[in-house]
Amino acid sequence: MDIGRFTLLCADGSARRGELQTARGTIQTPVFMPVGTAGTVKSLSPHDLEDIGAEIILGNTYHLYLRPGDELIARRGGLHRFSGWKRPVLTDSGGYQVFSLSELRQITEDGVAFRSHLDGSKHFFSPEKAVAIQRNLDADIMMVLDECVSYEADQAYTERSVERTTSWAWRSRQAYPERSGENLLFGIVQGGFFKDLRRRSAEEICSIPFDGYAIGGLSVGEPKEMMREMLLLTAPLLPIEAPRYLMGVGKPLDILEGIGAGIDMFDCVLPTRNARNGTLYTSTGQVNIKNERYKEDDAPLDPRCSCYTCSNFSRAYLRHLYTARELLAYRLNTIHNLSFYQGLVQEARKSIEQQRFSLLTEYYRSVFSGHDEA
Amino acid sequence: MDIGRFTLLCADGSARRGELQTARGTIQTPVFMPVGTAGTVKSLSPHDLEDIGAEIILGNTYHLYLRPGDELIARRGGLHRFSGWKRPVLTDSGGYQVFSLSELRQITEDGVAFRSHLDGSKHFFSPEKAVAIQRNLDADIMMVLDECVSYEADQAYTERSVERTTSWAWRSRQAYPERSGENLLFGIVQGGFFKDLRRRSAEEICSIPFDGYAIGGLSVGEPKEMMREMLLLTAPLLPIEAPRYLMGVGKPLDILEGIGAGIDMFDCVLPTRNARNGTLYTSTGQVNIKNERYKEDDAPLDPRCSCYTCSNFSRAYLRHLYTARELLAYRLNTIHNLSFYQGLVQEARKSIEQQRFSLLTEYYRSVFSGHDEA
Repeated sequence: MDIGRFTLLCADGSARRGELQTARGTIQTPVFMPVGTAGTVKSLSPHDLEDIGAEIILGNTYHLYLRPGDELIARRGGLHRFSGWKRPVLTDSGGYQVFSLSELRQITEDGVAFRSHLDGSKHFFSPEKAVAIQRNLDADIMMVLDECVSYEADQAYTERSVERTTSWAWRSRQAYPERSGENLLFGIVQGGFFKDLRRRSAEEICSIPFDGYAIGGLSVGEPKEMMREMLLLTAPLLPIEAPRYLMGVGKPLDILEGIGAGIDMFDCVLPTRNARNGTLYTSTGQVNIKNERYKEDDAPLDPRCSCYTCSNFSRAYLRHLYTARELLAYRLNTIHNLSFYQGLVQEARKSIEQQRFSLLTEYYRSVFSGHDEA
Repeated sequence: MDIGRFTLLCADGSARRGELQTARGTIQTPVFMPVGTAGTVKSLSPHDLEDIGAEIILGNTYHLYLRPGDELIARRGGLHRFSGWKRPVLTDSGGYQVFSLSELRQITEDGVAFRSHLDGSKHFFSPEKAVAIQRNLDADIMMVLDECVSYEADQAYTERSVERTTSWAWRSRQAYPERSGENLLFGIVQGGFFKDLRRRSAEEICSIPFDGYAIGGLSVGEPKEMMREMLLLTAPLLPIEAPRYLMGVGKPLDILEGIGAGIDMFDCVLPTRNARNGTLYTSTGQVNIKNERYKEDDAPLDPRCSCYTCSNFSRAYLRHLYTARELLAYRLNTIHNLSFYQGLVQEARKSIEQQRFSLLTEYYRSVFSGHDEA
């Protein structure tokens, strides 16, 4: 096996169809990675995820480090053996959570000190520590520690941050110098919302030999147009021969736009979090299952969907479960939303192979614009 | 098919091994019925229940009547079609919940007026209404409306209540006179904790031609010895040729004692509610999965159990899920506890066939007495 090899199978405009080899199997791209924050994709078992067709899931280093602890997981044989999920896992570096969840964080050149959002205990992440934790988790793909600046950050702050992120990226690489090793390592381009800084960060990060390159710091509250501008600017700056990962994005149309810009990998909490809030994605648009109109609706949630939920239950039953806050609601809704995202990237792959990706995007644009209810 | 036929296959002392035919298949007895309050056994899908081997589940008339409504369910084709559960369902009459959950209840000869615990709306259950609701749900086994008196009720009150319960039982039978119909109808013996009243209620209820007879009003806060006394007094008064059901009981040892007293059917929220509280039943005793001692325990929860949870996950992972309040914890714990109860009645059946039921009881007494942790 040739771990880390990324093969471009074909392209349609900037959209790419590829394959990435990891220590635990080959991932077809474009790919969507469900988020399994604390060693479980909320409400699902690993077998549910296999049934959905998930090829790789994401684990959150920050959460797993705090609870149950990366060393405990290492003693259990890694995250796969601990959780029962056998396919590849990508772990983020913990940086995003440190900056968004933890308290009293203090950033220095060396790393970032923070207090746990669980119990207020003090912790410190350096680039080297983030790699060590992810190796303890035995992630198939690790991410370097980076600083994700807020939408409000000014140019001077963002510039210092870009320098720090580059320096941390080099240190991460040195902490695990093995290219195409058992644990792949991806770099992250930052630069906030300043074109020059995005260009500079892309140049610096891409000069470091990583197994893949990510775009971080988007979808943090900026207007959609600005996210789009930064994506279209940054994506072409990433090496054509390596996998490209757009972190934390997004809605179905955002993912199609990302693919259209040449992105191969995506993760986002939206399909899972929205499922738990009763917001469901279907082939005819967004459905709010709480809505009174589904009270006596015997049709499946999405007649064009073949997931477990749509094969076995009606909208009326799903509405009842959600209204009664029954635990089964969370699982059935999550299975459907993740199946929808899985179907979306599968259709994207096929449409790239058949040179009709832009038609697919247009189709989904018509599904998700104008009206929100099916 | 001979709906309602109860066949006694063999006996060991007072313990019985039987079969009950319902419109949706034959139930082996002794049987434990998982509680599916609101059209779902909390956290489980109907397929999870089939995998566990559940043969019949219980639905709560009070809850389903209030939400989503029995008429809505009838328009969906009944509770089975609505929920996707294809095997038999027994519904209680709603009486117990009216007396324990609802507000401002007012009991008259005609029935009971109450306010919903959900929104305070006013409702009225008569014996006829309780049957009509259960026919809307299309329960395979319906229960008559009864009054479950509290442990504190005095003899005079309990006597009037027994009279009312008998009168309601007659009215229930008249509301659905079809014996061995599509929807079987069971009577309920009450009588509080007064031996004479238990005898009188048993005599009166058993003079009415029902498809089965239940003992109600036990396990409502009385000392264990008193429950046992009432059980041993009442069970032999029920017709030998009909199924006997001990309502709302109980812990594993309570169930074995019930079987020993000649009871065929049981239901209880304990295995499911305890699962959600992290209290798990195993072949070596009770386990509190929150306990620190399981933090690095790679063994399955119960090495002698072959359920989905024990076949795939470690105590360390279950503890992590529970500690992090992950939704998957509720499902995995519930699958295990219900599998344990299912195994318990299956062993009871076999031991009755092999004339060694008392040895099984002794064995479980040693498992569950003395120490609470495995």
